[in-house]
Amino acid sequence: MDRALSYATTNGRALEKALFEFVSIPSISAQPAYAAEVVRSAEWLRARMEHAGIAARVVSSAGQHPLVIGRSKQIDGAPTVLVYGHHDVQPVDPLSEWDYPPFEPTVVDGVLRCRGGADDKGPTLAMVCAAEAWNRGAGGLPVNVIFAVEGEEESGGHHLADFIREHPDELRADCLVILDVAGFAAGVPALCYGLRGIQTMEIRVDGPSRDLHSGGYGGAVQNPAEVVARLVATLRHPDGSIAVDGLLDDVAEPDAAESARMGELPVDEEAFRAESGAPALFGEPGRGLYERLWSRPTVEVNGIFGGYQGAGSKTIIPAWAGAKLSLRLVPNQDPSKVVAAVKRHLERHCPPTVKLTVTVGHGAAALLTPPAGPWAEKARRAMADAYGVEPKLVRAGGSIPIAQVFHEVLGLPPLLFGTYSPGERAHAPNERYPIADFHSAVRAGIRFFGIA
Amino acid sequence: MDRALSYATTNGRALEKALFEFVSIPSISAQPAYAAEVVRSAEWLRARMEHAGIAARVVSSAGQHPLVIGRSKQIDGAPTVLVYGHHDVQPVDPLSEWDYPPFEPTVVDGVLRCRGGADDKGPTLAMVCAAEAWNRGAGGLPVNVIFAVEGEEESGGHHLADFIREHPDELRADCLVILDVAGFAAGVPALCYGLRGIQTMEIRVDGPSRDLHSGGYGGAVQNPAEVVARLVATLRHPDGSIAVDGLLDDVAEPDAAESARMGELPVDEEAFRAESGAPALFGEPGRGLYERLWSRPTVEVNGIFGGYQGAGSKTIIPAWAGAKLSLRLVPNQDPSKVVAAVKRHLERHCPPTVKLTVTVGHGAAALLTPPAGPWAEKARRAMADAYGVEPKLVRAGGSIPIAQVFHEVLGLPPLLFGTYSPGERAHAPNERYPIADFHSAVRAGIRFFGIA
Repeated sequence: MDRALSYATTNGRALEKALFEFVSIPSISAQPAYAAEVVRSAEWLRARMEHAGIAARVVSSAGQHPLVIGRSKQIDGAPTVLVYGHHDVQPVDPLSEWDYPPFEPTVVDGVLRCRGGADDKGPTLAMVCAAEAWNRGAGGLPVNVIFAVEGEEESGGHHLADFIREHPDELRADCLVILDVAGFAAGVPALCYGLRGIQTMEIRVDGPSRDLHSGGYGGAVQNPAEVVARLVATLRHPDGSIAVDGLLDDVAEPDAAESARMGELPVDEEAFRAESGAPALFGEPGRGLYERLWSRPTVEVNGIFGGYQGAGSKTIIPAWAGAKLSLRLVPNQDPSKVVAAVKRHLERHCPPTVKLTVTVGHGAAALLTPPAGPWAEKARRAMADAYGVEPKLVRAGGSIPIAQVFHEVLGLPPLLFGTYSPGERAHAPNERYPIADFHSAVRAGIRFFGIA
Repeated sequence: MDRALSYATTNGRALEKALFEFVSIPSISAQPAYAAEVVRSAEWLRARMEHAGIAARVVSSAGQHPLVIGRSKQIDGAPTVLVYGHHDVQPVDPLSEWDYPPFEPTVVDGVLRCRGGADDKGPTLAMVCAAEAWNRGAGGLPVNVIFAVEGEEESGGHHLADFIREHPDELRADCLVILDVAGFAAGVPALCYGLRGIQTMEIRVDGPSRDLHSGGYGGAVQNPAEVVARLVATLRHPDGSIAVDGLLDDVAEPDAAESARMGELPVDEEAFRAESGAPALFGEPGRGLYERLWSRPTVEVNGIFGGYQGAGSKTIIPAWAGAKLSLRLVPNQDPSKVVAAVKRHLERHCPPTVKLTVTVGHGAAALLTPPAGPWAEKARRAMADAYGVEPKLVRAGGSIPIAQVFHEVLGLPPLLFGTYSPGERAHAPNERYPIADFHSAVRAGIRFFGIA
């Protein structure tokens, strides 16, 4: 272990350099124009795994972004750790809101400024580097490690889910480590045991056959952009509680023990608000911050669009308008029932003066795994040793649909390692990733492999 | 008069040829790349006025599209008719939706297929041809005629408004003819005596300082796109009636005589709906189609925008969102009071969890001029004689802000000549203009000048 840790320290600059190379590849999976870059990032990662002593291959499939599967030299009798990450990144628009080019990594005041640093290339690469430290610094890993790193996490693809279902034997393991969540605070890691689920949907409202002159038709033809606004406005009450009939029916509340634990976590609403930049916080009355973020469902409009968006005015009734919606789901909610409830709600609220089209995107149920047992204990110790502070036990408000598939097919409850400081601006302009978090994550990985 | 009418008949082909030349010039004022074409169409029109015996000049001003001012030989003691039109046209994109090239005029089944035919080159040229018929066919016009033809009507320029304010004496007249409205039906002209006013506004709602991850923040941070949707949805009731306090206070309803007249106009809601392409018509309960279009105010969202608009999904809470609004105003509504009412409404409905910014655009009051008096009577007779059918007395739902300027500076209530069949697809692909309407408009002009 000491030799592996020493390797990571001695080669710190080289590991950082690898990180910079990795994040400079614009592997935006949601935008078809970047498909070749997702291939390039898969190839880069495969080569890096080989460098780390991990036999790796890129798995391609027509119409899907490639995943990278790596496997350390087999040690019979040793336990196997399966590590999940993703090498694709979120889109970067609006580019004008970035203070720096999103794919030209620079470090300012110890913080890497780049898309994909925190989400999820940094944490993913940290575990590859931990394997490298054992293989190149200490003569070999003490455990079997399998990497499964997908290229379409940010675009809701199902390539890895298909792979898990078709090749479960290749991925059999004793525990599953997932690296796609944030820590609790700057320098304080988290061990996360719950994730919200997700369901994306898109609505489109068509009215007249073309943009109409708002003078010649206004007052007699329904405005599709107004209908979209009206539909979006019906989904929640103004206080943030959900207004869709049936959507809350199956929601499971946290049990007493968990409620007590959540109640003991430090909470600083003002710090959370300040970090978000919002003028004031928001949310369901009578629910605490962690509850609103972790154990209550949401419905958000992620994008809304229709009509003229340029400078000045254009006095039209737009021919159509649309909105992108996503819901976060909590334990016991079934995505297909949620879809049905929302569709029913939208159809009931849409007037006959327009045509409504609802497109259903990807869905995944929430995941809740008790933070107990020997693997959770090992993870806690590895993080405590690497960061010098106990990790907090948390849920996360985000969704990692693949965690559900791993759980279902392989029977593995995930250990979610929250290795980086929150405030990383994942999915937003100006994503950031403290370099110190990268090195801590490498050390946590080395320790976890060592004591696993 | 007979000699003038006879000239127009004998020279019908030559007048058509002039029309084809005029519309083949792509004088798109909104697009800087076509600026030289707007100059070319002004020059063409100036030359054509000279051919018609009208002394004409092109008035240029830096950064503005040229206007053409023409004046017939002065006859002391005779009344003066001021004719307004425009020689610029709307953009043609999306070009792929045109069934024919927009600037290669062809006539199929008696219909000229070309951008600018109806809006507004055909009607404008018809009045120049009417002057030509008098000057070249009958030895001279019986009235004084002034032409004021602008080159930036479609781009919202203020060159002509400036000119009116700076040179009112050049434009003093006894009546004003405006040619920029449609007729009532195929072959049935209209004499329009009312226009709605307009007020544009833009709202912007700012929330968090950046796009936030909808998992990490959803449930605790207000979504600005949802707030914009909510605000837009509060402006009207679902049935189309306005929900802004105070906005209807000053609305002047049509008087009994006008209501009776409107009630007698033929109405074909299904034809109107089919032409619009909307699945069903819409609007305030208990109000007829003409009322909804002409004498009721509207508030429309012309554009709405915020968050992710690309392919697939992006699970964010957008940092900001916005909407472009425009209101059509009716007689007795004061644009500044309307602005105050809408601002008050928006501020009252906006939660403190976001920051609202309202930007006020341009405003113009409605215009209503009683369709009575000797000039209106002359216009009615001229159109009835030329078309063989009485013109319908109508209002229009659109706004012609320059009409307000003529009215304010020169004290001239406009006579709006609706000379072409509706369904001309002005501002849209596949603009069309029946050739018969052009010849009828020439005859109406000859008759109006003759009996004026």
